[in-house]
Amino acid sequence: MKKYVFGVDVGGTTVKIGLFSPEGEIREKWEIPTRKEDNGDHIIADIAESIKDKMNAHGIDRTDVIGIGLGVPGPVKEDGTVLLAANLGWGKRNISMELSDIIKIPVMAGNDANVAALGEMWRGGGRGYKNMVAVTLGTGVGGGIIIGGKILSGATGAGGEIGHIHLDDNETDTCGCGGHGCLEQYASATGVVRIANKKLAQTDKPSILRDTEVSAKSVWDAVKEGDELAIEVANVYGEYLGKGLAAVADVVNPDIFVIGGGVSKAGDILIDYMKPHFEKYVFPGAKGAKFTLALLGNDAGIYGAAKLVLE
Amino acid sequence: MKKYVFGVDVGGTTVKIGLFSPEGEIREKWEIPTRKEDNGDHIIADIAESIKDKMNAHGIDRTDVIGIGLGVPGPVKEDGTVLLAANLGWGKRNISMELSDIIKIPVMAGNDANVAALGEMWRGGGRGYKNMVAVTLGTGVGGGIIIGGKILSGATGAGGEIGHIHLDDNETDTCGCGGHGCLEQYASATGVVRIANKKLAQTDKPSILRDTEVSAKSVWDAVKEGDELAIEVANVYGEYLGKGLAAVADVVNPDIFVIGGGVSKAGDILIDYMKPHFEKYVFPGAKGAKFTLALLGNDAGIYGAAKLVLE
Repeated sequence: MKKYVFGVDVGGTTVKIGLFSPEGEIREKWEIPTRKEDNGDHIIADIAESIKDKMNAHGIDRTDVIGIGLGVPGPVKEDGTVLLAANLGWGKRNISMELSDIIKIPVMAGNDANVAALGEMWRGGGRGYKNMVAVTLGTGVGGGIIIGGKILSGATGAGGEIGHIHLDDNETDTCGCGGHGCLEQYASATGVVRIANKKLAQTDKPSILRDTEVSAKSVWDAVKEGDELAIEVANVYGEYLGKGLAAVADVVNPDIFVIGGGVSKAGDILIDYMKPHFEKYVFPGAKGAKFTLALLGNDAGIYGAAKLVLE
Repeated sequence: MKKYVFGVDVGGTTVKIGLFSPEGEIREKWEIPTRKEDNGDHIIADIAESIKDKMNAHGIDRTDVIGIGLGVPGPVKEDGTVLLAANLGWGKRNISMELSDIIKIPVMAGNDANVAALGEMWRGGGRGYKNMVAVTLGTGVGGGIIIGGKILSGATGAGGEIGHIHLDDNETDTCGCGGHGCLEQYASATGVVRIANKKLAQTDKPSILRDTEVSAKSVWDAVKEGDELAIEVANVYGEYLGKGLAAVADVVNPDIFVIGGGVSKAGDILIDYMKPHFEKYVFPGAKGAKFTLALLGNDAGIYGAAKLVLE
């Protein structure tokens, strides 16, 4: 009987690896550096070696391992071909095949945001649901969509790129994608700061934020302290996020949204400021969607990668 | 060897039925009236009788039939339970079970818009693709989403309700859903007329439309004749539709959009006026989506219902 699964989250700086039971209990987790030199050619071999070392240390035989799942920062096709992972130096390559050729264990790969969503469904905030949207509010805004328990990758691996839903025709600043008025320009960490700085410039209203560095954290802290101007910022933030997630719900009608990423450290208050706007804009038939915070933090990727193999 | 599939499209006025080969060749199609009296209690029995009659007429045995698929105007759960079909007088009922109990043939059911999308994927405009969004531009705007060859129903059967994506904060008219600024308020047949009437009232510019009844057809006919005001209407129409479909593509990243419904009778010109706006607003990674017109017209429902059984 096979007793182990490995989940690997390949990031631009470190590769996180977890050893799991098939039921999703984590046995051990560790990290190795991501060697990006030589077009990232060493990364796969490094992962193979690290996993082999761990198997030797624990006396785990190849036949005890169901498989290895990989989350990769870029679009991944269903056959495991990575189309591009600029952060790793990778162009198009079939990493599933490369790794399984070395280590003789089945390998599955997926996009890191989608894989993290799968992790949150399996053992995190989305546990018990089959139709889930994971929303990552970090430097940017990412998304991962799970339908019927499976990742929605889309035609070119861009499924769930909800950060670039267009929301505001009047936006003059340019988004990282080249567009104007994308959800990400408001709902990311930099988005909060942008909204706050605009509010601060528009009025002379006193605010804690005038005496501190404006960051996603300082804004939400000020909201919690009842700072009027910060509350106005939270309302603007909530309106954009609510409007964006309403569009997502109109399309895929999820059971639940699982909100993670740095900005979500603000806690449930972020959901409180978003939800009335979501309910205003969403199609009545999709209004029942639940909202919860992500539970696995940076481990969502290794959990989801492991789950990929068990599908 | 089983040689037949029935596809049934249950509408508010007529029930359309098709007899298909498993390869999707249509052998025969016919209609019966929808008897809505007594809370629509006769509908299932009428369908059973009509199918039995057809089987007798052709000497088809029960064992020659793979199954019967049903498309129903309302949300349908995966187990075949219809939650509500107001147009038929139905409340919650498991119609798959009801019909299979009478006729002793396996029955599958799905929402009619989703089922029609499946039909277009199988034998219509989306043939050869696995990730497809069917867009119906009719009295309202409906959608059906196919991911990996399967219908995306969503948590409560509201998946693909793209007509209610919110697009315009400044809209004062109210949508049928109770919201303001939904895609349907612009991209439906009534939407075209609404946009045209506003343009006509705003200016004194001469236009063919001033001497004719304004309808979706007359507007697009005027566009084809080079009528300046009608072209302005088409641009406004195209911008709303393009913006809405861009949001859909950001979420599900389809291979192709298949455009059907009454308004789509305008032809490729409708796609021409929409596409530049789509490309302006969509996330670059999802830009490659193709657009085509639906091919099956009112038969999409019976094709898709038949395909439901073959999944």
